[in-house]
Amino acid sequence: MILLLGGSGYIGQAFARALERRGGAFRVLSRRDADYTRFGVLLELLRRDRLEFLINAAGFTGKPNVDACEQAKADTLAGNTLLPQTIAQACAVAGTPWGHVSSGCIYSGAKIVANGQTRVEKDLTKPELQALVRERREVIHGFTELDPPNFSFRDLPCSFYSGTKALGEEALDGVGQCYIWRLRIPFDEWDHPRNYLSKLLNYAKVYDNVNSISRRADFVEACLRLWELRAPFGTYNITNPGFITTRQVVAMIESRLKPRRRFEFWASDEEFYRVAARTPRSNCVLDTTKLASAGVAIRPVEEALDDALSRWQAAVRPG
Amino acid sequence: MILLLGGSGYIGQAFARALERRGGAFRVLSRRDADYTRFGVLLELLRRDRLEFLINAAGFTGKPNVDACEQAKADTLAGNTLLPQTIAQACAVAGTPWGHVSSGCIYSGAKIVANGQTRVEKDLTKPELQALVRERREVIHGFTELDPPNFSFRDLPCSFYSGTKALGEEALDGVGQCYIWRLRIPFDEWDHPRNYLSKLLNYAKVYDNVNSISRRADFVEACLRLWELRAPFGTYNITNPGFITTRQVVAMIESRLKPRRRFEFWASDEEFYRVAARTPRSNCVLDTTKLASAGVAIRPVEEALDDALSRWQAAVRPG
Repeated sequence: MILLLGGSGYIGQAFARALERRGGAFRVLSRRDADYTRFGVLLELLRRDRLEFLINAAGFTGKPNVDACEQAKADTLAGNTLLPQTIAQACAVAGTPWGHVSSGCIYSGAKIVANGQTRVEKDLTKPELQALVRERREVIHGFTELDPPNFSFRDLPCSFYSGTKALGEEALDGVGQCYIWRLRIPFDEWDHPRNYLSKLLNYAKVYDNVNSISRRADFVEACLRLWELRAPFGTYNITNPGFITTRQVVAMIESRLKPRRRFEFWASDEEFYRVAARTPRSNCVLDTTKLASAGVAIRPVEEALDDALSRWQAAVRPG
Repeated sequence: MILLLGGSGYIGQAFARALERRGGAFRVLSRRDADYTRFGVLLELLRRDRLEFLINAAGFTGKPNVDACEQAKADTLAGNTLLPQTIAQACAVAGTPWGHVSSGCIYSGAKIVANGQTRVEKDLTKPELQALVRERREVIHGFTELDPPNFSFRDLPCSFYSGTKALGEEALDGVGQCYIWRLRIPFDEWDHPRNYLSKLLNYAKVYDNVNSISRRADFVEACLRLWELRAPFGTYNITNPGFITTRQVVAMIESRLKPRRRFEFWASDEEFYRVAARTPRSNCVLDTTKLASAGVAIRPVEEALDDALSRWQAAVRPG
């Protein structure tokens, strides 16, 4: 049996649907059923139920956005750092393999490969990089799983949320049999406060940046495939391959959904952070070669976005 | 056998000396011998050696002071929150009882009991409280182990250091058999950068406040006595009973050590935080009734201070 933690959350619900489709035995465990954040409770449960696999989709993301984590530091750490460590240690004792939903938001920017040299650019919105982003996309490379996080408590500044996610990954290092699945900016065809497309539709103004992003169903499918293929344990960037600018996404929304509103963009980083955001945001490009090498196919970001927009469902909200 | 972690630190060395005096079997484990921050390494060691008791005196305090923790967030969390959780979970699996050196620096101020009412005052330096502190000491009560921390990530503002120590205590709650020993502002007769008396002697200016403090040898003695008496596991405030103002300590230093320098005080909180400190400091009074009720005697703060100053050793530094 597969045990799913955090099954009522935005990503957890997608795992539940994917597992249901597969037809195998799985159980969604809520904290009301058993407080799995307590080591003793979780370990007893793992020892009793002899699980095939455990999925941790629980975490603390902050509502309505990561700014909320700055004021909820204890809960953010408990959800994103202490809980993964507890699960890792309980699973190691019980011999249970498992997967953890982590985040690519522990990076900022991308790697620029030009003239045989590679450099990290933390901010792709710099004016001198605009031409590269538009016209020479092939020189912009994503961070691989071997690149150390550069938007974390070890590489300040970072948001408190990102710091706790990066430290959560560190806490899992070398403990038991674990996948670290890195999600980034989830979206799909279902309108939802956590959906990137819904956010763009609802923001008063839009912040233009460059990102790798993850279609929700593609993400959970890739996570489960890694386990089903018995791919080596470890860290995997799981986004739709490629990257996209916010302006591109907005253009696709305008073309597909024809919303009544007009989109306005923040004039600058400075204006965005002064008016709309309290803590720095991660915007980054991730490399997904490792996922592909493990034999897990996932459609490119433009295709995933276009498909989601072509099926857009604004009325129904399956969570 | 007793295993001591962090035995080379300021408090760890005092534990090592106290254990040596007792003559029983003990071992100081350094991270060079075995990386006990790794769950698998620690658990294997605990299972193999069948320890009687484990002492965790390791932690991250920041050098030269807690301001350094604001820039070393990952190490501060790893040392003060993740490591205690790892030890707790490994000890729970191995059935090893243990004790953790925590800190009283998760409180600010004291409780004022007057006219049948109790209120918390977070800042005892307020002008309107000066007369109480000087003349009506009996109305100032320390925080007990039942009072929730009020200088923590759950009760902001706090220093990053204090936040990680308070969360470290939370991570131990209900896991295995554990003492949480709360130290506060250690001092003794040996000149040392961590010694409160040395700090006062070396500060350019002194910050006047009200505190409970712990003579180092008295602290470790009380910790070990709790275990030797098989007192109930749980949290214990371990300071020399009572409280003292910085001005009182300075007066005792002047009278006993007759230093050449004259002591100057910061004119105000505002000046102190603007010029000398980056992050808020914990200043607080702790109640030690629970320790006394467990049958562990510890001399009052004035006596402990006077004795340390009468034996003051500026040349020799046993660490």
